Amino acid sequence: MKLNEWLNNEIPTIAKSLEDVHKEYYSIERTIGFEGVERIYKILQNFRSALFPCLCDRFSSDETRINIMIGNKLRTSALDLRDIIEKVLFTNSSDSQLNADEIVINLINKFPEIRRMIQTDIQAAYDGDPATTSTEEILFSYPSIQAISIHRIAHELYKSGVPIIPRIMNEFAHQKTGIDIHPGATIGEYFFIDHGTGVVIGETCTIGKHVKIYQGVTLGAKSFPLDEQGNPIKGIKRHPDIEDHVVIYAGATILGGDTKIGRNSTIGGNIWLTQSVPPNSRVYQSQPSPKIKND
Amino acid sequence: MKLNEWLNNEIPTIAKSLEDVHKEYYSIERTIGFEGVERIYKILQNFRSALFPCLCDRFSSDETRINIMIGNKLRTSALDLRDIIEKVLFTNSSDSQLNADEIVINLINKFPEIRRMIQTDIQAAYDGDPATTSTEEILFSYPSIQAISIHRIAHELYKSGVPIIPRIMNEFAHQKTGIDIHPGATIGEYFFIDHGTGVVIGETCTIGKHVKIYQGVTLGAKSFPLDEQGNPIKGIKRHPDIEDHVVIYAGATILGGDTKIGRNSTIGGNIWLTQSVPPNSRVYQSQPSPKIKND
Amino acid sequence: MKLNEWLNNEIPTIAKSLEDVHKEYYSIERTIGFEGVERIYKILQNFRSALFPCLCDRFSSDETRINIMIGNKLRTSALDLRDIIEKVLFTNSSDSQLNADEIVINLINKFPEIRRMIQTDIQAAYDGDPATTSTEEILFSYPSIQAISIHRIAHELYKSGVPIIPRIMNEFAHQKTGIDIHPGATIGEYFFIDHGTGVVIGETCTIGKHVKIYQGVTLGAKSFPLDEQGNPIKGIKRHPDIEDHVVIYAGATILGGDTKIGRNSTIGGNIWLTQSVPPNSRVYQSQPSPKIKND
Repeated sequence: MKLNEWLNNEIPTIAKSLEDVHKEYYSIERTIGFEGVERIYKILQNFRSALFPCLCDRFSSDETRINIMIGNKLRTSALDLRDIIEKVLFTNSSDSQLNADEIVINLINKFPEIRRMIQTDIQAAYDGDPATTSTEEILFSYPSIQAISIHRIAHELYKSGVPIIPRIMNEFAHQKTGIDIHPGATIGEYFFIDHGTGVVIGETCTIGKHVKIYQGVTLGAKSFPLDEQGNPIKGIKRHPDIEDHVVIYAGATILGGDTKIGRNSTIGGNIWLTQSVPPNSRVYQSQPSPKIKND
Repeated sequence: MKLNEWLNNEIPTIAKSLEDVHKEYYSIERTIGFEGVERIYKILQNFRSALFPCLCDRFSSDETRINIMIGNKLRTSALDLRDIIEKVLFTNSSDSQLNADEIVINLINKFPEIRRMIQTDIQAAYDGDPATTSTEEILFSYPSIQAISIHRIAHELYKSGVPIIPRIMNEFAHQKTGIDIHPGATIGEYFFIDHGTGVVIGETCTIGKHVKIYQGVTLGAKSFPLDEQGNPIKGIKRHPDIEDHVVIYAGATILGGDTKIGRNSTIGGNIWLTQSVPPNSRVYQSQPSPKIKND
Repeated sequence: MKLNEWLNNEIPTIAKSLEDVHKEYYSIERTIGFEGVERIYKILQNFRSALFPCLCDRFSSDETRINIMIGNKLRTSALDLRDIIEKVLFTNSSDSQLNADEIVINLINKFPEIRRMIQTDIQAAYDGDPATTSTEEILFSYPSIQAISIHRIAHELYKSGVPIIPRIMNEFAHQKTGIDIHPGATIGEYFFIDHGTGVVIGETCTIGKHVKIYQGVTLGAKSFPLDEQGNPIKGIKRHPDIEDHVVIYAGATILGGDTKIGRNSTIGGNIWLTQSVPPNSRVYQSQPSPKIKND
């Protein structure tokens, strides 16, 4: 077999070359690795079971055991999360003040409040979609709820200064739902994204209460300033502010850190907007005039 | 360890709080649960094996066994589906006339017709995409076929009045393909969605024969009327009608229950359309005029 | 039980009917089948482990074993890929000159160059996104890297004339990332797709160096010519050329085989473009004027 012989002769050199490139750019012993990513996914599943016991993978309808199950899921995930935070803090952080134990305690302490917030998001879906028939249907089949649940957890870790992990969490949600929310984004209660595929919400976005967004909406950045080395300057406000009770229809693109959408406004679909609009605005494209074929 | 001690002291209270919120909004013993969702996914996989034996997970090329395999997959899934329909009917339905056995018989009876319809969809993909080289390639790598196959099954269950399950089925397709079709939508034969990510087709949409839709197209609702309590009124016609032989390019947003796209029309990309167009229309945005930078 | 009885009586006929339709359109013994698709996915995972050892599913931080692991992954995948290429060549190809061994040798030989190219893509993500904090974060949480890595492999197989397999590879990436790149597309170094959901890049597209594309961008085909039988003519240039240092914002739709975007140009979001623009162009929609509600 020609291939077998070639593999025996050439693979060592090619493997060496791939190893060398990798080591040039990535530390081998300091990475969380694929295994770390899988553990973060597992933590998210356990958190989901704790927040929504009926979504637990080993759900028991024995009422007396539900409390025990929630407690166990929280305990296991908390310890797992602590370990992986310690690993990334050791590898990435310049801030030695951060303490993994405290970060995890802070997060778990917020779970009752996070759960309450998510219930407002579920309510917003129910109020905002005539197609839905029950809040159970929303929990089992609305990608928005999965995305915002993970975001509300990741956002707490982001605020605590944890690197990488919040992004991996939200990218997990992105993969599952097509909704890409940066963990830095600040999002108020009663938030609903209908359908959701293609939605992008940037790091420095702020979103008020009772905001409804449809699929394909981008809340993104315009071009950004570079430093003297030509690198993008980090930490600048780059994404829009959306005030309370705003509705944004499918495919609208709203960009810029000083772009503000005033309260009670409606932005029509496929709008390209890079400047602010005042409260109570309605921003629509004019309707195209159809041409009739003569063939 | 600080975290361990904290967990021992505080988790019982937090778990109790999460349990209480959950019970306030969700019935514990009456839900289909995560396990029910997983069973619905498994039923869909078995249906796929029955419809496309070469996509069976334990495919045998022994011709004599194919018939047996199809029969077994149908039998197992039918019984499973009956059980889970009974569960959701018991929990959700106000209509005690519905009978799970009859619903399943009705569905399985339609499988030959559903299979024939899907073959027209495969043919439409072949005719509509110069990049494809074989119908086998289409079956193995076109998300449109997965989405429309699941939809044609879920739509039958929707018509029978089954709650929640059809939506969970189509949301499974949405997760896999980025194509979000509500099970209520009525879709004619020879239907092709190219690429598909971000497509949304609403509950009361009707789509004729030989319709082609590209990625990011929304067939959605305008704002909808509320009842006296401020809740959206369910069951109203909210989404467009698309007649035969219409092509809709990427990112077009077409909204409204009285919006009709006349036969043989072409809608250009990124169009925002909330009113009807007559047959044979061509609706395009005017081309933008580029500005040249002088730096 | 009514259903059980019905299944016993009717399933044989329905199964026979489904079998007959399938056999009419698909060869049973000549297909790669579901199992073949799963093997292709597994090959991609092994290739990823070889290209990025820290993403290996059984990563060892023992430095002395990394080289061995890379070699093993390459060897196993190479042999697996050879087998499956032989199967599809036997089934699909009219060109009996193609040799599976040579195709695989050619691919593996290019791995060091492919790895180098992907590092430029990682660098482009780092340079192009102020939200990122490290190249490790990019590797673990940027869908663009997964999509372009798979594309750069599939593109080599496409150039070698392998049918179906490259499309199945890129459709795997599409499923995971929402980014749909046809394996025929030619893409230069330092390529970055930010967020990515809904991006479509067609078969005959060419993309230069240092190009940045945002979510929802389509580089697609206009309507295409049919042959005398009414079938689309294959192999014609149908998709745009994007020159070096071009930026295309979210949701832009650029179509046509003779459409060229000149170097250093910026295309704004939600633009619909079916004609060429010269170098250094800036193409934006005019800003809409908001109307203020008076209620």
